Amino acid sequence: MVPTSVLKKIRSSSEAYVARLREFVAIQSESANPAYRKESKRAAEWLMEWLTSMGAKTELHELPHYDGVVPNPIVTARIGNDATKKTILVYGHYDVQPAVMEDGWRTDPFTLTDSDSEGYMYGRGAIDDKGQVCSVLQALQAYVDTKEVLPVNLVFVIEGMEESGSEGLEDFLLKHQSTLFLDVSSVLICDTDWLGERTPTVIHALRGLNYFQVTVKGPKDDLHSGSLGGPAWEPLSDLVHLFSRLREGPAGKILIPGFEENLMPVSDEFRSRVNKSGLDAKEYKEKNGLPGLAIGESLDEIIVATAFRPSLTIHGFGKVFAGPGSKTVIPGTAVGYMSTRLVPFQDPKLLAQNTKEYLEQEFAKLGSPNTLTVELLSSGNWWYMEPEGKEITVALHALEEAFGVPAVPMAEGGSIPVAHSFSEMGLPVVLLSLGKAYGNAHGPNERHHIDCLTKGAEAVTRYWEGVAAL
Amino acid sequence: MVPTSVLKKIRSSSEAYVARLREFVAIQSESANPAYRKESKRAAEWLMEWLTSMGAKTELHELPHYDGVVPNPIVTARIGNDATKKTILVYGHYDVQPAVMEDGWRTDPFTLTDSDSEGYMYGRGAIDDKGQVCSVLQALQAYVDTKEVLPVNLVFVIEGMEESGSEGLEDFLLKHQSTLFLDVSSVLICDTDWLGERTPTVIHALRGLNYFQVTVKGPKDDLHSGSLGGPAWEPLSDLVHLFSRLREGPAGKILIPGFEENLMPVSDEFRSRVNKSGLDAKEYKEKNGLPGLAIGESLDEIIVATAFRPSLTIHGFGKVFAGPGSKTVIPGTAVGYMSTRLVPFQDPKLLAQNTKEYLEQEFAKLGSPNTLTVELLSSGNWWYMEPEGKEITVALHALEEAFGVPAVPMAEGGSIPVAHSFSEMGLPVVLLSLGKAYGNAHGPNERHHIDCLTKGAEAVTRYWEGVAAL
Repeated sequence: MVPTSVLKKIRSSSEAYVARLREFVAIQSESANPAYRKESKRAAEWLMEWLTSMGAKTELHELPHYDGVVPNPIVTARIGNDATKKTILVYGHYDVQPAVMEDGWRTDPFTLTDSDSEGYMYGRGAIDDKGQVCSVLQALQAYVDTKEVLPVNLVFVIEGMEESGSEGLEDFLLKHQSTLFLDVSSVLICDTDWLGERTPTVIHALRGLNYFQVTVKGPKDDLHSGSLGGPAWEPLSDLVHLFSRLREGPAGKILIPGFEENLMPVSDEFRSRVNKSGLDAKEYKEKNGLPGLAIGESLDEIIVATAFRPSLTIHGFGKVFAGPGSKTVIPGTAVGYMSTRLVPFQDPKLLAQNTKEYLEQEFAKLGSPNTLTVELLSSGNWWYMEPEGKEITVALHALEEAFGVPAVPMAEGGSIPVAHSFSEMGLPVVLLSLGKAYGNAHGPNERHHIDCLTKGAEAVTRYWEGVAAL
Repeated sequence: MVPTSVLKKIRSSSEAYVARLREFVAIQSESANPAYRKESKRAAEWLMEWLTSMGAKTELHELPHYDGVVPNPIVTARIGNDATKKTILVYGHYDVQPAVMEDGWRTDPFTLTDSDSEGYMYGRGAIDDKGQVCSVLQALQAYVDTKEVLPVNLVFVIEGMEESGSEGLEDFLLKHQSTLFLDVSSVLICDTDWLGERTPTVIHALRGLNYFQVTVKGPKDDLHSGSLGGPAWEPLSDLVHLFSRLREGPAGKILIPGFEENLMPVSDEFRSRVNKSGLDAKEYKEKNGLPGLAIGESLDEIIVATAFRPSLTIHGFGKVFAGPGSKTVIPGTAVGYMSTRLVPFQDPKLLAQNTKEYLEQEFAKLGSPNTLTVELLSSGNWWYMEPEGKEITVALHALEEAFGVPAVPMAEGGSIPVAHSFSEMGLPVVLLSLGKAYGNAHGPNERHHIDCLTKGAEAVTRYWEGVAAL
């Protein structure tokens, strides 16, 4: 049972919660672009200060460089050393996806708005993952403020490279497994979303991610398309033709070998849970702003496609003309950015290799004098737990009590590679979702519901108490 | 005959010539991006000041807005009103292509370098067209400084939208045909290049240009490729598949109907002139930094392909991730930039219509729920004159005397739509090339040879005297 004073404190603190989150959002901790390393470090230090103020023993861990990149540091913190209590490791991340007004933001991405008439606050990282991290820290803050006794020991691991493939994190965890994390018995991650806006979820499956940079290098410099158009063999034309061979049509079958194999069967129970959620395909399309779908229109098929079927996305092109206006240039080099999502029980290494080989084979068929380079920028594994585990059951109850509606175990299409790493270390992982669907994480106008911020903190306290009572 | 004092003045002024060009290059007069309208106007005013200081009657002409865009103004100037003399209209442009260091510039694009050991100065607009405009103005300056009598009347028309389809220019010319341009008997344009580095040219044919912006609009906002990858039908995938159908393979036949029709036969004489130039395919590839060619390796075939065969270039993509790093986004909208070059006697309007219809038809075949929009951003006609005209003959002699090497009539792959407009007005047009090949106009590290700047001015004075003597 959560002490009444803690619940009261949480339920009366929403203004303070928003103020904290606003501070956190204002720090432009983009990990994809090394230009934001200073800002990212500021986010790490902001977390350390807060955790220290609550009596935690904190530490900032620099990570080894890779490919000339200096990763953002990891923040760890420990509260409680009572050997009679269970120890929960809380994982989160303080880095965010890039955001610029030109992407279609209606407000400055790094200024969290007040909540609108529907209760949504807008800002980069609001839902992914700053808002959810704040709920967990506010749960702890409530115990500290009311001087109540925490039912568990807590170890925080908050990284700054999640949006860039969690580079260096797995090695870090393995290195400290027998020290920092020796007594950890389970892992809590709040970095996922609900099924629609009314059904809280505990996530029990995630997809993996292989992200590629595909470069075609041709003429030494960019060329004038009038003077050289015709004789020049254009790298961007190579890349367009190459990418057109990734799938059968723009939304068809993935043609890279191995993608349609080893797909796990999806249980009727899972489909039934989805269909009973009250969400439907029409709402799904509307809320996500989709003019149509690449697959059939039954809700369970949609959710299965996001979670248990692989996908392939072309994200964009670099080193070429990007508009606006017109420029009559033949880009000398063209870079394509693409990624694939992999599902439980597929082999990410094998599929990365297949992707590279397939691109190389198809490029060879083009007969181009230009040069192809395929680089795997990041790779993260899928993750799967049976939905009947005892921690998941505790988490579902915690959500139901905090939000007052039924919660369901669900699978998600996103990737949190660290979930797999913890599973490999033998730890049960609970993905307690504290964000409503359509939060537009990674896109413009990312948003978070104010209820999720406060009731989320309550759910976390209920989860801690529940785990302690197991 | 050019007065000796004028020739002496020109041959001793190279430092002053470089200083002037450096001032001109330093003005960032990019026309493609409306953000540079102020800088562009500064370039126009810079020209007006210089022309006024030489006794010209100058005027700045604002043009009508189009599609919400305010075009850069046109500078006109007149020197001489002697009815016993011929009047030559000099056309040039003060706007330049966009340039940013990231494109691969080794020096700041808007700071003209000193000439290197080979005689090249680097900077945006150095050859296209600021350097060539400077040579013409310096030719006039030499007469002014030496107080010699100009053999012709001169009318200058220097526009600021050439790199953006010369928007508004044709209407402007027609409007002032019977006033400003009433007594003009021929047109001189210095905005083209030599055949290689050793053969000065007078250009007698140019390609036309249709530039398209192709937009596929899908999801309302950018989406998370984990959460939505699979169900979402991705606009960028549509665009890649659509663009892959423009040609047969990355460098093959253009599949849009009508492009391979009405191609003019190329004379043996033309091929022979090309092959006698001393340039060869190996040098052509090396100097242009090409790892290979999309066509055969004989020099005449290469030059014919640039000048007398249509081409198609994909310039880039907008509204999508552009790197560096990685971003797991599904762009909600994808914009593609492409253009086609058309050759003498093809119909630009018909081919623009064919291109639009072909893209629409192929898009319909994709079965996408997304929306396609094809916009013709600019259109410029090809231009052709028989190479035996008397003004062309005068121009060839002027180049030979100034540079001391044989000059040839040649065809070019670039587009100067105004050449066609003047021809339609019944005026002979001479394209006197004052730039060596491989100047990298439109690309990074654009360059101009210092000899071209000074000997170019001499060639212009010789041309004026030659025309006066006809």
